[in-house]
Amino acid sequence: MYYFNTNFICKSKVVLSIPEHEVIFQPEGKRLKVKDGQTIFEAALSGGVDLVSICGGAGSCGKCKIIIEKGASVNSITQEERKLLTKNDLNQGMRLACQTKIYGNIIVKVPEHSRTGKQRLQIEGIDTPIKLEPSVNKFYIELNKPTLKDPKADVDRIKLELYAKFKLIDLNINFDLMTNFSKILRDSDWKITIVIWNDEIIAIEPADTTNRIFGYAVDIGTTKLAGYLIDLNTGKVLAAGSLMNPQIPFGEDIISRMNYEDKDKLQAAVIEGLNKILEELKEKTGIKSKEIYEMTAVGNTAMHHLFFRINTKFLGYAPYPPVVRESIVINSNKIGINIHPNGKIYFLPLIAGYVGADNVAVILATEIYKNDKICLTLDIGTNTEVALGNKEKILSCSCASGPAFEGAQIKFGMRAASGAIERVKIDPKSLSLTYKTIDNESPKGICGSAMVDLLAEMLKSGIIDVTGKFNKKIEDPKIRAVDQILELVIVPEKENGTDEDIIFSQTDVRQIILAKAAMRSGIEILLKNYGLKIEDVDKLFIAGAFGNFIDKENARIIGMYPEIDLKKVTYVGNAAGTGARMCLVSKNAKKIVEEISKKVIYVELGADKDFQNTFLNANFLPYSDLEKQPEISKLLKECGNFPERPPHIFK
Amino acid sequence: MYYFNTNFICKSKVVLSIPEHEVIFQPEGKRLKVKDGQTIFEAALSGGVDLVSICGGAGSCGKCKIIIEKGASVNSITQEERKLLTKNDLNQGMRLACQTKIYGNIIVKVPEHSRTGKQRLQIEGIDTPIKLEPSVNKFYIELNKPTLKDPKADVDRIKLELYAKFKLIDLNINFDLMTNFSKILRDSDWKITIVIWNDEIIAIEPADTTNRIFGYAVDIGTTKLAGYLIDLNTGKVLAAGSLMNPQIPFGEDIISRMNYEDKDKLQAAVIEGLNKILEELKEKTGIKSKEIYEMTAVGNTAMHHLFFRINTKFLGYAPYPPVVRESIVINSNKIGINIHPNGKIYFLPLIAGYVGADNVAVILATEIYKNDKICLTLDIGTNTEVALGNKEKILSCSCASGPAFEGAQIKFGMRAASGAIERVKIDPKSLSLTYKTIDNESPKGICGSAMVDLLAEMLKSGIIDVTGKFNKKIEDPKIRAVDQILELVIVPEKENGTDEDIIFSQTDVRQIILAKAAMRSGIEILLKNYGLKIEDVDKLFIAGAFGNFIDKENARIIGMYPEIDLKKVTYVGNAAGTGARMCLVSKNAKKIVEEISKKVIYVELGADKDFQNTFLNANFLPYSDLEKQPEISKLLKECGNFPERPPHIFK
Repeated sequence: MYYFNTNFICKSKVVLSIPEHEVIFQPEGKRLKVKDGQTIFEAALSGGVDLVSICGGAGSCGKCKIIIEKGASVNSITQEERKLLTKNDLNQGMRLACQTKIYGNIIVKVPEHSRTGKQRLQIEGIDTPIKLEPSVNKFYIELNKPTLKDPKADVDRIKLELYAKFKLIDLNINFDLMTNFSKILRDSDWKITIVIWNDEIIAIEPADTTNRIFGYAVDIGTTKLAGYLIDLNTGKVLAAGSLMNPQIPFGEDIISRMNYEDKDKLQAAVIEGLNKILEELKEKTGIKSKEIYEMTAVGNTAMHHLFFRINTKFLGYAPYPPVVRESIVINSNKIGINIHPNGKIYFLPLIAGYVGADNVAVILATEIYKNDKICLTLDIGTNTEVALGNKEKILSCSCASGPAFEGAQIKFGMRAASGAIERVKIDPKSLSLTYKTIDNESPKGICGSAMVDLLAEMLKSGIIDVTGKFNKKIEDPKIRAVDQILELVIVPEKENGTDEDIIFSQTDVRQIILAKAAMRSGIEILLKNYGLKIEDVDKLFIAGAFGNFIDKENARIIGMYPEIDLKKVTYVGNAAGTGARMCLVSKNAKKIVEEISKKVIYVELGADKDFQNTFLNANFLPYSDLEKQPEISKLLKECGNFPERPPHIFK
Repeated sequence: MYYFNTNFICKSKVVLSIPEHEVIFQPEGKRLKVKDGQTIFEAALSGGVDLVSICGGAGSCGKCKIIIEKGASVNSITQEERKLLTKNDLNQGMRLACQTKIYGNIIVKVPEHSRTGKQRLQIEGIDTPIKLEPSVNKFYIELNKPTLKDPKADVDRIKLELYAKFKLIDLNINFDLMTNFSKILRDSDWKITIVIWNDEIIAIEPADTTNRIFGYAVDIGTTKLAGYLIDLNTGKVLAAGSLMNPQIPFGEDIISRMNYEDKDKLQAAVIEGLNKILEELKEKTGIKSKEIYEMTAVGNTAMHHLFFRINTKFLGYAPYPPVVRESIVINSNKIGINIHPNGKIYFLPLIAGYVGADNVAVILATEIYKNDKICLTLDIGTNTEVALGNKEKILSCSCASGPAFEGAQIKFGMRAASGAIERVKIDPKSLSLTYKTIDNESPKGICGSAMVDLLAEMLKSGIIDVTGKFNKKIEDPKIRAVDQILELVIVPEKENGTDEDIIFSQTDVRQIILAKAAMRSGIEILLKNYGLKIEDVDKLFIAGAFGNFIDKENARIIGMYPEIDLKKVTYVGNAAGTGARMCLVSKNAKKIVEEISKKVIYVELGADKDFQNTFLNANFLPYSDLEKQPEISKLLKECGNFPERPPHIFK
């Protein structure tokens, strides 16, 4: 046979027409061939170089700072860079990787603060007990061979035996399986294991394999993917893993991904990511793809639509209608998830455009849908979903809390990776500041939990007032003005792992207040719509990627949530992942989530006449109406920082 | 963009390595380029040259005779050719196309008798009235646009309106449709037509298209494909067409197709054939693919399995178990049928390995399943399916009648094409023979209906006796011995369109008797198993490709079926096609066929202890036990040809 390698030809043609250059990324030492005119960001992306970006190369976040160490064949500084880089940056020869095009061989240095490091991803969630009754089950049978007296169809033979032995009825058979299983029957001497998903026969295996039934539960976050490999005979998690969502390079936030042209790429990226985690879990456990018969998935509505490649064009615009709300089941081979080719993908149902399957899963995992008492859930992320209610009624909404807590829009903001400052304490009297970093590494930036601490500590110590404004009167070497903007130096350059002071500025404070105000106003609007006060709430569940790391009291001090007894506050970790796992091990959980999806009443904050005033009230620390926050008021009084003039209450 | 044409490169490479030659086929004058070493049969096949073959190029039927008119670059005569060609053939330079390899430019003559001509294909069947209630329905709705107060999911919006306006509930939506319909909603200003198959939304179309709903019903015969384009708003057949089954080149009979290695090719061939008919029907009617939402199909079990590419390996060996018996529904895009991409393919259920969906369809169309009185159906083909019963109970079996009636194994046998002798009469006294050809063309061979006539006429005129043996004592110029085998000259060379006498030999008689004996014994075994006599049968329905063309009385004289009142015999034409059409226009018909498939009791003739004796008895004309055939006995007596010694009755 004549074999013609088209790939090779195409490649060599490209070589002839477009020159290639070599880029070395330091300190990793990674060498890459790049095409003429590619940006350093694109090169780093394709080569897996650890380089921070929040905007995904759009030239708007200013995080992907690099230094050209050797070589000069690049374009000159762009307008975006002039805007985003400081004079100091420019003096050091700093460039933005996404703005710098490569026209010759160069050596690029990625400074410490432009590297992500090993990220801490919350994958553990509460374990909500549930009866083991997975959708996938196996049945071992031994059949009589066909004879002239009994020449019935192979499928009928199997079904009759499944009825005789297990009283199973009304079974279907997967079409792809049907086309090729008959040889397996003969080869295994008619001793076989039948794998059934609900009422569909999805696999037929030689001999008795009933002790091996596995499933894969995943949580598709905007930022992070988490996966759990589960033994469906015991319900136990055998291994768990996580990965940054490989869609991030195509857009950090949901909106930019929904606007990204090539949706096929986005779909391919997330599926590749889920397969990558699975590969790792399989290696850890020695389980094979063909032994994994179902994947259950949760994610917000945008992640859901992008995963299935459902049109997201209209989801991005008010009134943000999703295309579909109900759960979706498809065959794994339809979409390329590397479990058994006839295995099923079950995606939990949604509630609305901005309240997705992840929130349905949180409601399932926290069991508020069957609680007699009123519960509140807060799933903190770029969008924070709030649910309020009990077995009678549940309201939900989505708050545009934004990516500030994840590091975006905050000058030294970063994700919860090694070297991120995660705890800050300020002595109200001496104003001396102490901090703790993740993995106790040299500090590189500030992650979400420390931002909450900072706001609370700065409020208590009077560095900021209830409006979030820096107190100009305080004299402390850590507080200074740069370009007329006040800022607090957290770690001076000489003590940290970067080449500049790590600071937290007035602008940063404003961003965090906006984020917490979004959450708080969501909670307030739900309480109002339900006709409840915070005292009526029996439990507050905090879920989400960084939820568990927040200091409950500090979060309450800054007014992220109303003044609730802290004993009522419970961390539930990745409760969305817990919900996905519950649906994997329990058919009944699948029924419950359908009910939740139908029952939960979505409240569109933008359509509530009180939303704007509530949001303005929530822009105070902790909230405009201090009388309703007696404990914090008392605390502020003790610190001597209770405001002389009470904040304006918008009504 | 750099475009690299791989096809071209591959092709030119092939040219360099394998030489090509030119073959001209006469009298068509078709010129073809062929590769060195290809057979003339392969060349004819690839170029669509009209050349008869029954074994599909296996070198066993001896039908593809050709003459090399010019050029000598071919291999020398093979052993197969020595066996299958007569001395006369060899003298004329006759070769078998499938045995002759091309090593240079040649001109090939395809003699008249090696051409198929335009074939008569029975596509009309009885019209059994049925209530119009197709599985596909359309609903026109106008929706309110989403607002902040009403941001529900697009699918929910549609479902709620379908409930409000039409009280439709429990609808699903096709996954492929779901991923892309939301733009249609907006582009059509929320005025849309919803297409629903059973309870699944399969298409959403702009504006009101409810007046255009079409379906395609097909009958996949071993030899012939038939297709019907039907208006599902009226139930009327708008156009019908047919085609030889494009699988024939891969094997004339079912067994050789089941043994053909490359099943993908077989599947592709039949799908291409069905698409080809559809293309023609669409052109005739101006209907578009996307307006055709369902295809219903019937066919025997082997055709069914090959269509879906289900493993046929075990179907070919005793006890011939099919893989699956129940009806199959899949999406058209799964298999490449050119109706609406989300349209459905519904294949009627089967009964057993040799009683397929075609027979289920015949039972549906003849309505014997609801008849109070006992009915018998005979669907004549390479396999003749027999069904016997009424609304209480139905038995069925399959008789290996073989392809003799279709022309195989009969020296001058041919299919019912132009120039085929279809009627023969012999005057019992003068023995003068008259005949009629299809389209009144110059005679080329003998088709099935004439074979039945010949046996009956030869019996009545005493040319053969009840054992089928030629009467040596008769002296007539038309009867002669060639190589010690007696034969009847039907048309001497000078009167016909071939270059030799058209004859019907002792061997041919034996073949036809074997074929009719197979049918007859099937009927006898079913009657016995049911505990019935032929007098108990109220109706005999004759279906099948050539059923309508058989002379009822002659068929009875040769004992194809027992001595039944001819008024009870009804032709039903392509009743299998009728059944497919009924299932297309009626959901209820689909329910009925499922019942039929489950209810009909398959009788495996090979497993019946009386089968062998019955078959031997049926090898007499009309049947060994002449007392049970009083009318034919009387007729034979009148002709003076009642046997002196009654036939042996096997018991």
